[in-house]
Amino acid sequence: MHILVTNDDGVHAPGLLALAQAMRTLGKVTVLAPDHNWSVSGHVKTLHRPLWVKETLLADGTPALATDGAPSDCVALAVLGVLSETIDFVVSGINPFPNLGNDLTYSGTVMAAMEGVIWGIPAIAVSLDGDENNLKHLNYETPAAVAVQVVKQVLANKLPDETLLNVNVPNRPPEEIKGFRITRQGKRVYKDVLIERQDPRGRPYYWIGGDAPVGITEPDTDVGALEEGYISINPIHCDLTAHHLIEPLKKWSWPSIS
Amino acid sequence: MHILVTNDDGVHAPGLLALAQAMRTLGKVTVLAPDHNWSVSGHVKTLHRPLWVKETLLADGTPALATDGAPSDCVALAVLGVLSETIDFVVSGINPFPNLGNDLTYSGTVMAAMEGVIWGIPAIAVSLDGDENNLKHLNYETPAAVAVQVVKQVLANKLPDETLLNVNVPNRPPEEIKGFRITRQGKRVYKDVLIERQDPRGRPYYWIGGDAPVGITEPDTDVGALEEGYISINPIHCDLTAHHLIEPLKKWSWPSIS
Repeated sequence: MHILVTNDDGVHAPGLLALAQAMRTLGKVTVLAPDHNWSVSGHVKTLHRPLWVKETLLADGTPALATDGAPSDCVALAVLGVLSETIDFVVSGINPFPNLGNDLTYSGTVMAAMEGVIWGIPAIAVSLDGDENNLKHLNYETPAAVAVQVVKQVLANKLPDETLLNVNVPNRPPEEIKGFRITRQGKRVYKDVLIERQDPRGRPYYWIGGDAPVGITEPDTDVGALEEGYISINPIHCDLTAHHLIEPLKKWSWPSIS
Repeated sequence: MHILVTNDDGVHAPGLLALAQAMRTLGKVTVLAPDHNWSVSGHVKTLHRPLWVKETLLADGTPALATDGAPSDCVALAVLGVLSETIDFVVSGINPFPNLGNDLTYSGTVMAAMEGVIWGIPAIAVSLDGDENNLKHLNYETPAAVAVQVVKQVLANKLPDETLLNVNVPNRPPEEIKGFRITRQGKRVYKDVLIERQDPRGRPYYWIGGDAPVGITEPDTDVGALEEGYISINPIHCDLTAHHLIEPLKKWSWPSIS
């Protein structure tokens, strides 16, 4: 099995190293990841400019490929031919911070995995519930071990077309993890605030700041699972349709256009 | 009513002008849009750098605001305080080319509207089924008239929280439009190919090229509606969960992690 490992934090992020090392227990690993951080970058396909792919080394001395493209570009590049060997699985992560609720729609980590399933390749995204104010205590050992188990589950059970698993793991040692919980996408309330400053010429500029989002705890959601010490396994797909609204909308009084 | 008009093609795109002019028949319009093209850019929140907002003029001489942020940033900036007046509706477009199937997950046009509903503001995204090889025949009159009708429908009927309408309009005069069709997200098969070239120093670079995606025609989808001459109204939401997989996944043999 040939596994593509990518992320949105950049090829030299420690979470990617932990993930690549864990995936080597399952098969051949190729790392192709962005050369810089693309957090909160969404689902990108870079068409308007060419992309570089350069060889580099991970901190453990193993070879990797870096590109100036986005996380989802890494997957497209790999699939479309930068790698001579076909890819059997895409694993994206380990993001140091959780991808929960509406974060998913912005997440480079999740969208890299989504790009995989769009090209017909099984994929998972893996994130750690790390604390941004305590970077020394990011436990990548647990999500790396979890990722191995989740890949095995997907291989054994198969997922339908264009579906993937968004995996979030508590920042705790393995023995303190309560287990897996299958979840739906929950809610986080964003606490963004706009900071207005002036440049050296007196012109205003803006910076989006503010506190971390606050999760709304519901036990069957990704947010709730993490809060209760469970690994969240959220099956997601590319279909944004609010299917429950199709019939109600047909009853609206749609006018004639001509 | 105060309507925010934005897009992903840049503030001087003709589709934005047509949309802003049409929206003025419904209320006060503020244009805040990217200063350059962000097509296929996904759902972005720019946190790592400040954002400029500068005054400009549209081709009809009316004032507008441009930013170096992404389409979704335009909405966040407006909501978070760049505009002193609250926003009652976000209208994104008119994209010259359709946003169908998995395009939605990449679409700056759609993700700007999604950013609106995440902040609790009703929103629609509007795209024209234009032909990339025939730019002279982009009929923005029809989608602009359609956008007015769709905004009226949303105001009259209301949508649930975190749901929006993705509107795609045939590239035909109003009298040739067959009507509105409520749709689900369909499928387009991507025809991307990777072009490998060498830079002046003999190093390889890659460019994602290839033909336009090919839609799979199913009458109840966005793709099918356009092909049959109907306006596609696709209700979408931020929830990526594949709800139908939650129960099946609970039956997988999830192991212990410790």
